[in-house]
Amino acid sequence: MAIKGALSNLRVLDLTRVLAGPFCTMILADMGADVIKIEIPERGDDTRQMGPFKEGESAYYMNLNRNKRGITLNLKSAKGKEIFLELVKRADVVVENYRPGTMEKLGLGYEVLKEVNPRIIYAAISGFGQTGPYKMRPGYDIIAQAMSGLMSTTGWPGGEPTRTGTAIGDVLGGLSCAIGILAAVNARSITGKGQMVDVALVDSAVASLEIINMIYLVEGRVPERIGNRYESTYPYDSFRTSDGSIVIGAGNDRLWQKLCEVMGKPDIAEKPEFLRIKDRVEHHEEVKAIIEEWTMKHKMQEVLDLLEAEGIPCAPIMTIDKVVNDPHIAEDRQMFVETYHPIAGAIKITGSHIKLSDTPPAIKTCSPLLGQHNKDIYVGELGMDEAEIDKLKEEGVI
Amino acid sequence: MAIKGALSNLRVLDLTRVLAGPFCTMILADMGADVIKIEIPERGDDTRQMGPFKEGESAYYMNLNRNKRGITLNLKSAKGKEIFLELVKRADVVVENYRPGTMEKLGLGYEVLKEVNPRIIYAAISGFGQTGPYKMRPGYDIIAQAMSGLMSTTGWPGGEPTRTGTAIGDVLGGLSCAIGILAAVNARSITGKGQMVDVALVDSAVASLEIINMIYLVEGRVPERIGNRYESTYPYDSFRTSDGSIVIGAGNDRLWQKLCEVMGKPDIAEKPEFLRIKDRVEHHEEVKAIIEEWTMKHKMQEVLDLLEAEGIPCAPIMTIDKVVNDPHIAEDRQMFVETYHPIAGAIKITGSHIKLSDTPPAIKTCSPLLGQHNKDIYVGELGMDEAEIDKLKEEGVI
Repeated sequence: MAIKGALSNLRVLDLTRVLAGPFCTMILADMGADVIKIEIPERGDDTRQMGPFKEGESAYYMNLNRNKRGITLNLKSAKGKEIFLELVKRADVVVENYRPGTMEKLGLGYEVLKEVNPRIIYAAISGFGQTGPYKMRPGYDIIAQAMSGLMSTTGWPGGEPTRTGTAIGDVLGGLSCAIGILAAVNARSITGKGQMVDVALVDSAVASLEIINMIYLVEGRVPERIGNRYESTYPYDSFRTSDGSIVIGAGNDRLWQKLCEVMGKPDIAEKPEFLRIKDRVEHHEEVKAIIEEWTMKHKMQEVLDLLEAEGIPCAPIMTIDKVVNDPHIAEDRQMFVETYHPIAGAIKITGSHIKLSDTPPAIKTCSPLLGQHNKDIYVGELGMDEAEIDKLKEEGVI
Repeated sequence: MAIKGALSNLRVLDLTRVLAGPFCTMILADMGADVIKIEIPERGDDTRQMGPFKEGESAYYMNLNRNKRGITLNLKSAKGKEIFLELVKRADVVVENYRPGTMEKLGLGYEVLKEVNPRIIYAAISGFGQTGPYKMRPGYDIIAQAMSGLMSTTGWPGGEPTRTGTAIGDVLGGLSCAIGILAAVNARSITGKGQMVDVALVDSAVASLEIINMIYLVEGRVPERIGNRYESTYPYDSFRTSDGSIVIGAGNDRLWQKLCEVMGKPDIAEKPEFLRIKDRVEHHEEVKAIIEEWTMKHKMQEVLDLLEAEGIPCAPIMTIDKVVNDPHIAEDRQMFVETYHPIAGAIKITGSHIKLSDTPPAIKTCSPLLGQHNKDIYVGELGMDEAEIDKLKEEGVI
């Protein structure tokens, strides 16, 4: 049987707001899941009010919520709870990123939902997870970056701990939750039952610190900020040229020898203090000075051309305008895709990065207006009539 | 039916080396997939030679390859190819992170494998992806961080572009590939057929730059390095105290008012230049100065206690020694787990961060010695006898 998206058999009820949760459900929607985003009547997701804006519409929201249908529902009202449980009966996955306990307080915790639908997969993303002494602490991205140790190892010797220039804690949490959901879908195909997925932003950031954690666990040494170089090999760093910085990753002896040849200094490769990886890591400051003496004499593009010709890994440090207009990234890999929004008009958003050959991810629809699919769902799925919908709206339920 | 791991019905042939690929298959193995790591005879994965070491064994390798079985196989030999195809018949997933075209040159590309097993899911992780003009470029983590624009937005105004302090490009690629594989598993449950998953490190890093890309796409403004603050709200930044830096995320008006009260300066909250989010973003330097005037008078823990009591999001900027010994992260969330290696002895490694309630991920076995499971697979699965194995070893096939 041919299908249109890899996840087109799955329906997801999406209670998430802001970034980590919506990033997770965006990935599922890009792969064809029927994601129904449930927003608070009148107000909607906080990011609807967050910039950048196009024609008054939030591009923050439009990027993260493409391919989703949107309905409004007030889960605090008795009727709203009743409607939500009807939707749970018809769904495969519920995703939320409230603080732990919020859904229980609403009477809509996993224990209640699984009574209604034992096949439901319940995924929760939170700052610190559903268990443990810090679980009630609010968990924004910057807090995960700080608490995980990531900030302590990003930046320059003698400088301040540094936040990664994107909300990487949220992104790692969102990706990890998508993995948990899809693993639970696979398990359900055997057991017939759903389960709970519990992903914390802090845990996700901690897991990303692979070799960094191991340095402390094995050597007892606390990893510090070391700028752009890498703990385990050298030269693997950024280098200044006469018109900007580039990166070079000549991580093994063969590439180091080639690099010395390109620089016209083949004898340096054989010096005992630079001979092996561990020697060059130890003498990284001298190696950097030697390389920059050469790179500073050339323009960025000249250096890149010389290195590329010899197969030495290197790259420009691109700014976002370059990335968005890059022929490989933008054109071939389709990492920026135009969509059409009824209010904002034509707008480019970030494309899907997980490419599947037979069921390619696609951006088919733009983000929903607030409550845009209320009729679709409440009439088409739950069989209400127009009068009922009007009444629910009046009462603030939808 | 009860199962032990969410992915315990899946067998994965793992040809990956170093970081991005092994991180992906580690996630699958932690969830119960039978991951068979295939290494080059005699030498094995490059990370076996990379530090940090314990009793001569690489902790880099031990962390990323727990829960996997390990065999040796030379894919360049005719007999090695034949054995590999036998294994493909019995597998669900093949994962590799060679440069594009390498498997085709070996005569083991996806087109060949799917003839042998139409249900096989073939996942490839590479620097730039399987298509496009840059596809043959070597793709290390630092190159993905540079080419995606991530480095250009990490760091301080007037300072250098900065690499995130972990191999975040590799981690994002590994997580994304796991999502692609599990989505393909779901699709296969409907179509009966496998497909190819193509994940690039550069694409994965580009996708992580959510709001950053949108700022350029919508406003035409090139996002720059802005230190630890955030483009869309303030105060959401790091602040110095008398004995170290902390982060505070008082991202809305209510939290800002509370913060001013805690600082004993309630009147400041009402000043027109600090009244709304956009005002505080515009005047972030003045806001930071006001907050640091207060935080610098106190010790870190005092500030955190005062803020936490009022529910204002805040956190210490933890170093790795603190993270590894933190009661919540280490004890409750089990983010560091002891395992026992026959040579290294007892060793703590990073735990699984995707928690599933009914099929919890677990670290059951340590990483394999080189070729440790050759007998398991070649005798137990393929029915060879000891003499055959000895001959294959002699010929350098295994």
